[in-house]
Amino acid sequence: MDIEGHRDHLAARIRLGMVGGGQDAFIGAVHRIAARLDDAYVLVAGALSSTPERARRSGHDLGLAEDRIYADFAEMAEREAARPDGIEAVAIVTPNHLHADIAVAFLARGIHVICDKPLAASLAEGRRIADAVADSGRVFALTHTYAGYPMVRHARQLVADGSLGRIRVVRADYAQDWLAEPLETSGHKQAGWRTDPARAGSGGSIGDIGTHAFHLVRFVSGLRVTALAADLASFVEGRRVDDNAHVLLRLEDGARGVLTASQVAVGNENSLRLEVYGTKGGLTWQQEDPNRLVFTPLGEPARILTRNGAGGVAAAQRLTRVPAGHPEGYLEAFANLYGEAAVAIRAARGGPSPDPASCFPTVDDGLEGLAFIEACVASSRRDAGWVSL
Amino acid sequence: MDIEGHRDHLAARIRLGMVGGGQDAFIGAVHRIAARLDDAYVLVAGALSSTPERARRSGHDLGLAEDRIYADFAEMAEREAARPDGIEAVAIVTPNHLHADIAVAFLARGIHVICDKPLAASLAEGRRIADAVADSGRVFALTHTYAGYPMVRHARQLVADGSLGRIRVVRADYAQDWLAEPLETSGHKQAGWRTDPARAGSGGSIGDIGTHAFHLVRFVSGLRVTALAADLASFVEGRRVDDNAHVLLRLEDGARGVLTASQVAVGNENSLRLEVYGTKGGLTWQQEDPNRLVFTPLGEPARILTRNGAGGVAAAQRLTRVPAGHPEGYLEAFANLYGEAAVAIRAARGGPSPDPASCFPTVDDGLEGLAFIEACVASSRRDAGWVSL
Amino acid sequence: MDIEGHRDHLAARIRLGMVGGGQDAFIGAVHRIAARLDDAYVLVAGALSSTPERARRSGHDLGLAEDRIYADFAEMAEREAARPDGIEAVAIVTPNHLHADIAVAFLARGIHVICDKPLAASLAEGRRIADAVADSGRVFALTHTYAGYPMVRHARQLVADGSLGRIRVVRADYAQDWLAEPLETSGHKQAGWRTDPARAGSGGSIGDIGTHAFHLVRFVSGLRVTALAADLASFVEGRRVDDNAHVLLRLEDGARGVLTASQVAVGNENSLRLEVYGTKGGLTWQQEDPNRLVFTPLGEPARILTRNGAGGVAAAQRLTRVPAGHPEGYLEAFANLYGEAAVAIRAARGGPSPDPASCFPTVDDGLEGLAFIEACVASSRRDAGWVSL
Amino acid sequence: MDIEGHRDHLAARIRLGMVGGGQDAFIGAVHRIAARLDDAYVLVAGALSSTPERARRSGHDLGLAEDRIYADFAEMAEREAARPDGIEAVAIVTPNHLHADIAVAFLARGIHVICDKPLAASLAEGRRIADAVADSGRVFALTHTYAGYPMVRHARQLVADGSLGRIRVVRADYAQDWLAEPLETSGHKQAGWRTDPARAGSGGSIGDIGTHAFHLVRFVSGLRVTALAADLASFVEGRRVDDNAHVLLRLEDGARGVLTASQVAVGNENSLRLEVYGTKGGLTWQQEDPNRLVFTPLGEPARILTRNGAGGVAAAQRLTRVPAGHPEGYLEAFANLYGEAAVAIRAARGGPSPDPASCFPTVDDGLEGLAFIEACVASSRRDAGWVSL
Repeated sequence: MDIEGHRDHLAARIRLGMVGGGQDAFIGAVHRIAARLDDAYVLVAGALSSTPERARRSGHDLGLAEDRIYADFAEMAEREAARPDGIEAVAIVTPNHLHADIAVAFLARGIHVICDKPLAASLAEGRRIADAVADSGRVFALTHTYAGYPMVRHARQLVADGSLGRIRVVRADYAQDWLAEPLETSGHKQAGWRTDPARAGSGGSIGDIGTHAFHLVRFVSGLRVTALAADLASFVEGRRVDDNAHVLLRLEDGARGVLTASQVAVGNENSLRLEVYGTKGGLTWQQEDPNRLVFTPLGEPARILTRNGAGGVAAAQRLTRVPAGHPEGYLEAFANLYGEAAVAIRAARGGPSPDPASCFPTVDDGLEGLAFIEACVASSRRDAGWVSL
Repeated sequence: MDIEGHRDHLAARIRLGMVGGGQDAFIGAVHRIAARLDDAYVLVAGALSSTPERARRSGHDLGLAEDRIYADFAEMAEREAARPDGIEAVAIVTPNHLHADIAVAFLARGIHVICDKPLAASLAEGRRIADAVADSGRVFALTHTYAGYPMVRHARQLVADGSLGRIRVVRADYAQDWLAEPLETSGHKQAGWRTDPARAGSGGSIGDIGTHAFHLVRFVSGLRVTALAADLASFVEGRRVDDNAHVLLRLEDGARGVLTASQVAVGNENSLRLEVYGTKGGLTWQQEDPNRLVFTPLGEPARILTRNGAGGVAAAQRLTRVPAGHPEGYLEAFANLYGEAAVAIRAARGGPSPDPASCFPTVDDGLEGLAFIEACVASSRRDAGWVSL
Repeated sequence: MDIEGHRDHLAARIRLGMVGGGQDAFIGAVHRIAARLDDAYVLVAGALSSTPERARRSGHDLGLAEDRIYADFAEMAEREAARPDGIEAVAIVTPNHLHADIAVAFLARGIHVICDKPLAASLAEGRRIADAVADSGRVFALTHTYAGYPMVRHARQLVADGSLGRIRVVRADYAQDWLAEPLETSGHKQAGWRTDPARAGSGGSIGDIGTHAFHLVRFVSGLRVTALAADLASFVEGRRVDDNAHVLLRLEDGARGVLTASQVAVGNENSLRLEVYGTKGGLTWQQEDPNRLVFTPLGEPARILTRNGAGGVAAAQRLTRVPAGHPEGYLEAFANLYGEAAVAIRAARGGPSPDPASCFPTVDDGLEGLAFIEACVASSRRDAGWVSL
Repeated sequence: MDIEGHRDHLAARIRLGMVGGGQDAFIGAVHRIAARLDDAYVLVAGALSSTPERARRSGHDLGLAEDRIYADFAEMAEREAARPDGIEAVAIVTPNHLHADIAVAFLARGIHVICDKPLAASLAEGRRIADAVADSGRVFALTHTYAGYPMVRHARQLVADGSLGRIRVVRADYAQDWLAEPLETSGHKQAGWRTDPARAGSGGSIGDIGTHAFHLVRFVSGLRVTALAADLASFVEGRRVDDNAHVLLRLEDGARGVLTASQVAVGNENSLRLEVYGTKGGLTWQQEDPNRLVFTPLGEPARILTRNGAGGVAAAQRLTRVPAGHPEGYLEAFANLYGEAAVAIRAARGGPSPDPASCFPTVDDGLEGLAFIEACVASSRRDAGWVSL
């Protein structure tokens, strides 16, 4: 809730625009939810697609005002910069090869940028962005999501405060299986651009997910990679980029590492794992079990550290919203009930009927629950005698 | 994302009020995040505290208009009902003993209600609410959160479609440890009202968390509990309600069950587990690992079903927002980066400086990532020769 | 290895007989392996079946001398007691209803008894055994296996040394699924006697596995159960004993408990779990993951204690044979290689050919391994240059 | 139990000798237990140490006849070969650099060899052994333990029968932490020879445990490694061999792999993990959880395969001794009870008193168990009424 604490009043919400993220896109919706979660942003403008008709429809879906729906990011940058109520920040959620032009256009007009990863399709384009950031003095945030997990912050803190001693070995593995077959030849939009060097850049799995693993190594260990030796492979016939990567790492201060990325590892959904070993301790974290971090001080039993649990550190706790033991998806579960209720409420307005699968708890469930509580109390008072409901 | 699909435009957002949930409250903030997540509601009014000064400060924090901040829920119900832009729905997040009066007040004015669980402090009060719901014809949603988890819906679907055969045994365990000591005597607000029969009702652990377990049994098995025998205990000296509950259940169709709830089970944060066994199969689900459901058809190996993974069912998928393998907390991780960026952006406006612990990825991280990708590709082209960074 | 340490020389091996455990039996073979494992016993006599022909064949299989194969346990007791090299101890591995007569016969002749659980088919018969034990002064061991796990001993030690404080809650669950269907009507020998009240006693699941859970509660908590309330059920049509049991427990010093046993819980093989919660800490142990014990001191992170690992206690370590991190099945894996090699060696003697599935590692595997090591060293010396094998 | 089935009678037990494995050794005792487990071998001779006094004491401990205790393996080979009841097989459990001379000496006399891994301290020495095996026609078994786990056999079978399709990626990781500090300078015997190139060979972690991981890759995937690039490191100051190894692999048919070994990975005891990914499926296995194998067919949910559980294959089942759900350590637990009973029985003979920590279940536990069963039945008959014990 800390983050909520930073907001004083609604007027303080940041006016946000978005480039990309129209209908059929994936990561755009994730950015919008993230922006809404703590009520720190309000989406007011968008160039959600370069196809005018799709841009328009996508903008309507999101409730944007007619005059703030754009098909062209350059026009959007120009017009928004000119409005007194223009956007203060823009989220860039297009394929990688477009990041540089877009980022530069908005930064040049003094607009802060939140950009999906990787930074760009090439290092050269990335440098253009970096220059524009430097010239503009604007905020530039790159969404390496995993850096946002509280237990990743806890891990980083353990390294930073010396709990692991000098780091010797770092290992990061990111395994998926969604590209185990040639999905890109079947018209799958995500697979299409992510395996196209012209849009994704030269890296396939190494760019799409290896770069996440790489950032995690940097972020938690605090060490720079000084040299690497990489064995990339394309297992799916006809694929134009790597779909599997095995990389040896050498890091500052003599540490060694291995980083792997695979999009053909059948049975893995988003299995990102990090292991860091130092002279005084070791830690492991897995994205699919994000609320726990296992930390072992040398010569002692392993400790299971949890989000907001005993042994917590401020660096992690400031980023949590729910108590220990509630997985962070607790909020989504909660939101699902609000969502189903919203549909029912709109139906009462005359809107469409709820999905037959809708089944949020209602007053009847509440009555049953109360009858249950009272029956338990009554039974217990009678020494666990049976009570009918 | 399904839920997002139900919304046509901003005008369709439901105007929401809230009673309770002011500064220092816990569940109110959870309700607000849940309401925001899919952008289906907009919070416009609140009686966030019965203390006028706290109500005012809490309302300001949330950006409510001055004239829609109330200290009295009855006044709020009356005035909001009279406004053309008045609230359509209210979220009730007060202690249990206040639910009935509040719910009745709003329902009587045709305002939909979303209410935290348990329904009320007594069955009698619950019936008053039920009557008001029936008279008003309004939507009444009770936030038994666990019903909102996609894999709970999947479990429910497996029972409903006969995959488990006839249900024989149901077990639900909810274990916490936050009340292992007499926290209520130390001024802890949550512990205070939750162990006070006047505010919480006659049940302690059985009312606070046992009722969640009970709802889960009902929700997934579809069976009514017909009789129970309960052994409640108060282990902490001076505690006025139970802090541990062991309950035998008899259900429709001859099924048997055990339900336990404990708030003194040291080492458990929010360990809610459900097991359902039928003639043809069995399933287990745990709230602390919510994205997985283990289902075993009789005589076959266990299968790990995942949120949005292979073998998914529509009843669960319609409630998911991120791909399989991303724990739902992925959205919170994402939101954390947006949150830190927001603070940086406000600092650029002249707002307060970011927390020194803020460390969202920036363009420099992006450059390192691109250098990494290009180094990998270069190394791989040289047969995994070393490349310096 | 501690146990090995107790043995001074081969002459010290205890001469053991066995009653029951002939061909087709299950637990007899387990007893024999257990007796051999530390070389403390030598099996020299047996009444392995009450059917003379089966007794003979079973005795031959086990290499017993012709004159020490019996079909009648009473005759065996008499003759063995008369021999100067007669058995010192007997293992009783028959169905429950035979335990009492057999045990009394051997104890009366001064022969120590190791008996499978439960003690007998009824409390009355059990008392007969207890009297015979008292009269004879002989050792009587009852194989509640789970008391033999090192981490169960560690758990017991934690309770005994006060690490958990005063015990409040104990829970033990034992779930299986092998009797989810009416296996006893298909001629299945184990299912036959275990569901026959005349041979198993009045308890079904509660006697077969619930009694294990009960012993574990006693053994670890050190508390006596003072009262119980049990809800037993027979779900499979025609079954004559319970196949599911839910039991509320009250223990000494005000502790409460729940014990469950099920043989119809589809998806469970031998899922025995124990949870103990006290004023200062809590612990959980699961038989299917026996090398780990999770212990949480109040207000601290959970600690993963392992067999022979950091934080070990003598009470557990004295019963271990392999280092931490090697599951105890490591010995069986090792024995499997010895077993396959034995078949190959016997084939060299002229015995039958090995099973085609036999595939123990040989010298060729060894050469490949050495080539691998040397290639690694050579590659590393050339800065991780590729080396062909 | 299959293996037991291969034995006809005691006369068929193989006469075994052992070289190495005297007091203070580790792996020798493991070999002896493995040899005893299925009663296929009888240890009759040994050169357990090259120090005559230690050889003698170690031989006495194991009950060897005076004239079959040797201090010199060459003498042992010669004399045993000359006896009509001489050993048929020898187990070699010395440091690596002695394997070749010993193996050749026994093979040359027609004695089968079971040898600990790695085969020798160098490839050249390994070839000497291979030549001797070829010349002698004797059985040579190398104890790469992990090949003996039933679920490893199951994994191998899944690859062999095409369930994974064509193999693309293989990963094997073996992490320990026992050498995280310079244990070899403190007089620790195991650490001493295992980090001494003269006794262990040129590989440190890569030879000691990497070679296990390598064999596992070969054994399960069936593929040869054709080339490798290795990055070995020695993190502990003064260490003469590697204690951490990162190796890129190229395998037959275009497969790629990564193999890592570490003895400084704090928090890992014997964490050996294998992952194999093919065009049609993937599998993962972990030594610390050896009874389970996770197999995912492409596009389907993951399946948890268990030792002897549903979906089992003959190649694995033939190597199992206990039912599904009993971890293989079940046998050790059982043996612990037999062990404690043995001490009690010997005490009755006049031997030393049992360890005060001894606590095997006795007749009193049995009586309590029977009282429990009868109380449950009585309570259940009274509709779960309370029954005192």
